[in-house]
Amino acid sequence: MTEKMNIGLLGFGTVGTGVLQIVRDHQDKLVHQVGCPIEISKILVNDLDKDRGISIEPGMLTLEADDILEDPAIDVVIEVMGGTGDARAYIRKALENGKHVVTANKDVMAEHGSELLTLANETGTDLYYEASVAGGIPILRTLVEGLASDRITKMMGIVNGTTNYILTKMTKEGRLYEEVLQEAKALGYAEADPTADVEGIDAARKISILGTLGFSMNLDLDDVEVTGMTKVTSEDIQYADQLGYTMKLIGIANRCEDKVEVSVEPTLMPNEHPLSSVDDEFNAVYVYGEAVGETMYYGAGAGKFPTATSIVSDLVAVLRNKRLGVNGQSLVIPQFDKKLKTDEEIFSKYFMRIHAKDLPGTFANLTAIFGECDISLEKILQVPLNEGRLAEIIVVTHGVSRKNYKEVLQKLNETDAVVEVKSNYRVEGVMKR
Amino acid sequence: MTEKMNIGLLGFGTVGTGVLQIVRDHQDKLVHQVGCPIEISKILVNDLDKDRGISIEPGMLTLEADDILEDPAIDVVIEVMGGTGDARAYIRKALENGKHVVTANKDVMAEHGSELLTLANETGTDLYYEASVAGGIPILRTLVEGLASDRITKMMGIVNGTTNYILTKMTKEGRLYEEVLQEAKALGYAEADPTADVEGIDAARKISILGTLGFSMNLDLDDVEVTGMTKVTSEDIQYADQLGYTMKLIGIANRCEDKVEVSVEPTLMPNEHPLSSVDDEFNAVYVYGEAVGETMYYGAGAGKFPTATSIVSDLVAVLRNKRLGVNGQSLVIPQFDKKLKTDEEIFSKYFMRIHAKDLPGTFANLTAIFGECDISLEKILQVPLNEGRLAEIIVVTHGVSRKNYKEVLQKLNETDAVVEVKSNYRVEGVMKR
Repeated sequence: MTEKMNIGLLGFGTVGTGVLQIVRDHQDKLVHQVGCPIEISKILVNDLDKDRGISIEPGMLTLEADDILEDPAIDVVIEVMGGTGDARAYIRKALENGKHVVTANKDVMAEHGSELLTLANETGTDLYYEASVAGGIPILRTLVEGLASDRITKMMGIVNGTTNYILTKMTKEGRLYEEVLQEAKALGYAEADPTADVEGIDAARKISILGTLGFSMNLDLDDVEVTGMTKVTSEDIQYADQLGYTMKLIGIANRCEDKVEVSVEPTLMPNEHPLSSVDDEFNAVYVYGEAVGETMYYGAGAGKFPTATSIVSDLVAVLRNKRLGVNGQSLVIPQFDKKLKTDEEIFSKYFMRIHAKDLPGTFANLTAIFGECDISLEKILQVPLNEGRLAEIIVVTHGVSRKNYKEVLQKLNETDAVVEVKSNYRVEGVMKR
Repeated sequence: MTEKMNIGLLGFGTVGTGVLQIVRDHQDKLVHQVGCPIEISKILVNDLDKDRGISIEPGMLTLEADDILEDPAIDVVIEVMGGTGDARAYIRKALENGKHVVTANKDVMAEHGSELLTLANETGTDLYYEASVAGGIPILRTLVEGLASDRITKMMGIVNGTTNYILTKMTKEGRLYEEVLQEAKALGYAEADPTADVEGIDAARKISILGTLGFSMNLDLDDVEVTGMTKVTSEDIQYADQLGYTMKLIGIANRCEDKVEVSVEPTLMPNEHPLSSVDDEFNAVYVYGEAVGETMYYGAGAGKFPTATSIVSDLVAVLRNKRLGVNGQSLVIPQFDKKLKTDEEIFSKYFMRIHAKDLPGTFANLTAIFGECDISLEKILQVPLNEGRLAEIIVVTHGVSRKNYKEVLQKLNETDAVVEVKSNYRVEGVMKR
């Protein structure tokens, strides 16, 4: 039996305590897998006295990051602080000092991943970050290893548990956004400030990480077209249901030839699509590969133990590499230069809910506008509103370019007969088999 | 750029041609990933002249296995012949000659996996077999790597596409087993002799492989309690539906403390369970880990390109190992000795459909028998049959031991009031969150 491996932990919140607990509880399995005992020997905290409900040996906690980053006895650093300021600096320092790093930090990886992975490569260290996307689902190694031989053309992910919880409750219980959001906060599924979740920023970070790996192309957060889910109404969800769709906040990454598009937006998923039945706080990532076809990976997207499992599995990988003497070899430099599709090259179906004056000729008028923009319609639903003074018209288009779609939205809004385009969403199809 | 890697292919049927095609079509990506060109240089066939619809360079095909197994220029052998006779011998010889092996052969791995993996370990070679379970789903590396740090307690898999296709059609279209089986044969989803599929043998091989990896314990095909799906009737499926369940052929591997049970059987899955909506020829593996909770992996279970993708991804892994000089290091010897649960230790709910004489006191009589066997009932449904001379009684039990379940079946069959226990199935629950 080799000497034990010493691990430093940066941050000791929910996930950090989960990591400590798994390393302790599953020590037997870990020893069996990596060939030596693993010990979390030092933990960076910002309060030495806080009770975290877990036993701590004296001297384990420190307020000084350098007690970990500069300690030659520490082999691997696990970063679970979150944020991008200190976390990025500490990860850099750890890598520069020859320590391997495992992080759960999607913010850092979405914004500085390329820089940090290059640094790890230069210093011969490992930087693993499975837990940064879809906590308990080992999706990153699936993209890098399991589907290594295939050409991935599409990824769609429900990668934010908070918004999926809210949308599920709105859909299944017919409840209002604000009400469910409050409940989600009370249950700990939503943070006090839920902006990053409900505005789609969190999902955008994750889809940019997925896109980078799946398409072998450096994609940044800025490349993601983001629409949050705060404007989704119960009416939208009900109409979607009538038409056979379920509303989900979907991170989408599409590749066609050498160009890609990446977005996060509320999307109508056909009820036959496997993503449509991913409910509550669960996450799932759907991957389409040219050869493998449709695959989907489902599990808890966050939470203490699911996230900690991914982190400790990464730790196992790092320590196996260490045993074999092959740390710092896992970086695959992106194969392709980034090329984003233009609005002319992005095609999708769309759902629009339009309030129009209920007058003779209105519908013909609208149809003409769609025709001018070269858009044909797949589904149309019209219901009277306000005692017949208004008509609510719901359409689902056939596939159109985003350019034509933006054009028709503008024209509709400029038309006298149209009072308002109440809402509009992307619509996904089902893969033909 | 390093010299090219030469690969030998044993077998050139559907999957073999898929492998050749992927290696050719995705050559750029493969070169980028492994750092050198990959070439399938020799292929073992049993007919040199057959047209396989793919271009072959002269001299590529051979009738002699040794042209591959004894060729020092060949680095890796891909075995896609199937069967256990020659395949096992060829894999052994390849490993003995220092060649790495990638196989899609579940029969060989289920029956001789332990022997072959040990041999690979002794000869410092790699033996990868991702494609042997659930073709396009990278489930084996998920168990070994992604969930490396967790303690897996339950796996359930829809791991046979043929039977899932048949059950889906019976369920959704109300059709008869025989009719759908014929259709499946015509479509190529079922083989001319479908015995291994419909009797659950194929699924049993796969669940024994999953159990071995997930529980780190050598499980053989003989350890799997197998019940096929040939006796499932439309009536059973309809009653299941009325009670909120979907009938699936499920491979189950359960662990409790240090003991396991492994079975394949037609099982009633609650409609809320993610496996219940895995339809048609698709496969899925559901894994429950103590820390990670519920996860599920979904995709094509068979077919030319999904299977070939898994094989070529394994090939990439082997060639990366070769570049790093770490072949033959991936075997993790099972951590635990095999301990199977006894019938007293296996608990489940069960569905029973009973035909009884419709006389006063019959139901009380049955209730008494369940009581004697210490079985309480969760759901009861009774309908008259044959103009009231018979009663069809459907019960779903609470959790009972398999011992008590077998006992009640025997007692029911010996009771005068019971004409016949028409069918009986295992019933799964939904994990409490």
